[in-house]
Parts: sequence; structure tokens; C-alpha cells
Amino acid sequence: MLTLYYTPRTCALATHIALIDAGADYTLKRIDFAKGEQRAPEFLAVNPKGRVPALVTPQGILTETPALLAYIAQTHSQANLAPTDPFGFARLQAFTAFLSSTLHVAHAHGPRGNRWTDDPAAQAALKSYVPTSMTAAFKLVEDGMLEGPFVMGDTYTIADPYLFTMSTWIEGDGVDTTQIPRVLAHRQMMTQRPSVIRALAEEA
Amino acid sequence: MLTLYYTPRTCALATHIALIDAGADYTLKRIDFAKGEQRAPEFLAVNPKGRVPALVTPQGILTETPALLAYIAQTHSQANLAPTDPFGFARLQAFTAFLSSTLHVAHAHGPRGNRWTDDPAAQAALKSYVPTSMTAAFKLVEDGMLEGPFVMGDTYTIADPYLFTMSTWIEGDGVDTTQIPRVLAHRQMMTQRPSVIRALAEEA
Repeated sequence: MLTLYYTPRTCALATHIALIDAGADYTLKRIDFAKGEQRAPEFLAVNPKGRVPALVTPQGILTETPALLAYIAQTHSQANLAPTDPFGFARLQAFTAFLSSTLHVAHAHGPRGNRWTDDPAAQAALKSYVPTSMTAAFKLVEDGMLEGPFVMGDTYTIADPYLFTMSTWIEGDGVDTTQIPRVLAHRQMMTQRPSVIRALAEEA
Repeated sequence: MLTLYYTPRTCALATHIALIDAGADYTLKRIDFAKGEQRAPEFLAVNPKGRVPALVTPQGILTETPALLAYIAQTHSQANLAPTDPFGFARLQAFTAFLSSTLHVAHAHGPRGNRWTDDPAAQAALKSYVPTSMTAAFKLVEDGMLEGPFVMGDTYTIADPYLFTMSTWIEGDGVDTTQIPRVLAHRQMMTQRPSVIRALAEEA
């Protein structure tokens, strides 16, 4: 049994979808950011970083989306959610690392500018730049990283629910959607996938 | 043969050290940020993101430090640079993902605030907050993630050159060194390692 700590509308959705795609035996624990539960002692004992997702496994607790996605793929290899050859796996990892360290970081400058400055005027400046930085990041996905129809080409992998999750932020972040038709087509395809429908329903 | 595109004093050093640790057959290509070579068409053809490191392999080009480090470990398994069981590998990946998406990002708000705002006053505010955010990130490493003596405990892994590389930024980023004695001890140990000595000499 795996236990996923999540908060709706966060990147934890990617891991949630991947658990379903993998056919994993899992349960959910919701962390309410509005109540500050991510900073409560009970959750900091699970993840000292105070963030979701966190995954409780029989061997211990894991964090960081790229690590969780690869773990789920590797422990449910029959689901074929990641390449097993080193080069293919590295290409997949290059994608998840980009989403984690560039695209998600660009998004976070809207709601979480206090991670990088305590100056309210600077936080406002960061928020106003999110459409620019998010459009630039999605353009890199659009123009080269997204092979199509799935991220890695013809085969669905753990990269797909991760991209889908970030794609749900596009309108809220003011991304210029005219520049990313292939990303939007990927998102539309994903919304029809049973694992995505189920995950969204479970988080609603 | 592997070709590493690097710039001195960047996170590419981690991959450089790992190549030596792995006993890999590699060559180096230096990208000069001062001359803007990372934005030149020749390099953008290698890495459209305009960043180092990039690693040219016989199968294609790879980017993103966590992906490169895992690739080097997996293709040089005799060097024993990463756990091969899914949980151990995921713990390692959680560490490299944290360095990539939190610690390195905190650092980047000093020299590269223009990624997240075009307002000079806001960029100055970001730069002035780097000591706070970098100290907080290193405290998470100090208090739990760094097992000791190596990152993952008794066994040296690809996490060690990555932490070492970021540790070389500590003084420049104004980190409160009194709070991170274990990180400093790790750095001191790493400076005596032949692969680290050789990599620094090759980049000098």
C-alpha cells in the first residue's frame, strides 16, 4: 500500500494519475494549504520541506515529483510507464527535471513569491512576469520537447500526467495559448483518459 | 565518447566530476557566458534551453543535471555510483531533484533574477534575499538529507559531486555557515577527492 499526501490543484496530481495508470494499491491523504496544514508538525514529520506530494511506501517516505514518478514506473514495470534503457530513461528524466526546476518554478512565482523575496512590491513584480516566463517555458515544450502525441512519442509515460498537470495552470497563469497548440492538444487528449478522469474526481 | 558542454563555476561541475568517478571516456567543450555563447545559434542547436550542462552521447543529446548524473551512473554500473533498487534510486533522485528545483533555483535568484522579472528593483530585492533562501535550503540538507559521511550514507554516489558543486557557492551567496557544519565537512572531504581535484584543474 502506498499513501499519497496531496493538495488539489498542485503538482501532486501528476503522481496521483501515475498511481492509477500503474494499477497501484494506494490511498490519499489531503493536506489543506488554506488551513496551513503543510506547516503543521504532523505533516513536517512526513516531509520536513512542508510541501506536497509526499509518498509513504513500505520502505519509507519519498518526495519530489520526478523521483515519485520514476519510482512508481519502476515498481510497476508491467504498466510500461518509463523506458528501461539508460538513454531513454535519461530523456524522460530530462523532461521531468525541466518541468520541476523550470516550468513549475516559473508558475510558483505567482502564488509563492515569498520563497524568494519578502518585499511585497517585488512579489507583485514576480507575479506580473509569470505570463512571460510560463509562455517561454511552454514554448520550449511546444517546439521540441513534446514529441507527440505523447511527450515521448508514441508511448504513454509518466511524463504525460506531469505535463497535463502543469497544463491545467495555463489559463490561470496567463500563458499565450496561441503559441502552444500542440500542448493544448495534448491536454485535451489527456482529459479523456480514464486515469485522469478518476484522479480529478477523487480530488474534487 | 561523451562530450560535456560546461561553463566553469556552474552546476556542470557535478556532471564533470561524475564522469571522472565513472571512469568515462569524455571530452569537454567550454561555453563562455561572458561572450554570450550560451545564446549563440551553434549552442542553441545543442541545447535550445541555452544552458549548461549538455551531454552529447552516441545516442543523442541529454540535458538537466539529475538526468545526466543518473545516466552516467546507469551506463557505468561498475562504478557503483547509484543504488539500483527502486526505493534507493528514488531516494537519490529526491535529493538531486531538491538540489535542482529548490537549492539551485534559490542561488539563481542572485545572478539570474531576469528569468523571473524584468524590473531592476525587484531583481535587486531577489538578490538581497539569496542568503536567506540559500541558508534555509542548506539547513534542510544539514538537518536531514545529508546522512553522512556521504549524502546517501556510507556509499559515495552521484549526489555527492552535486552537493559539493552547490557547496562551492556558499560564501558567495552569503549562507550562514555556522548553521551547516555537516555540509562544510562534506565539502572539505570532497576537496580531497582525486576526481574533484582533477575536474577543478580541467576547468581552471
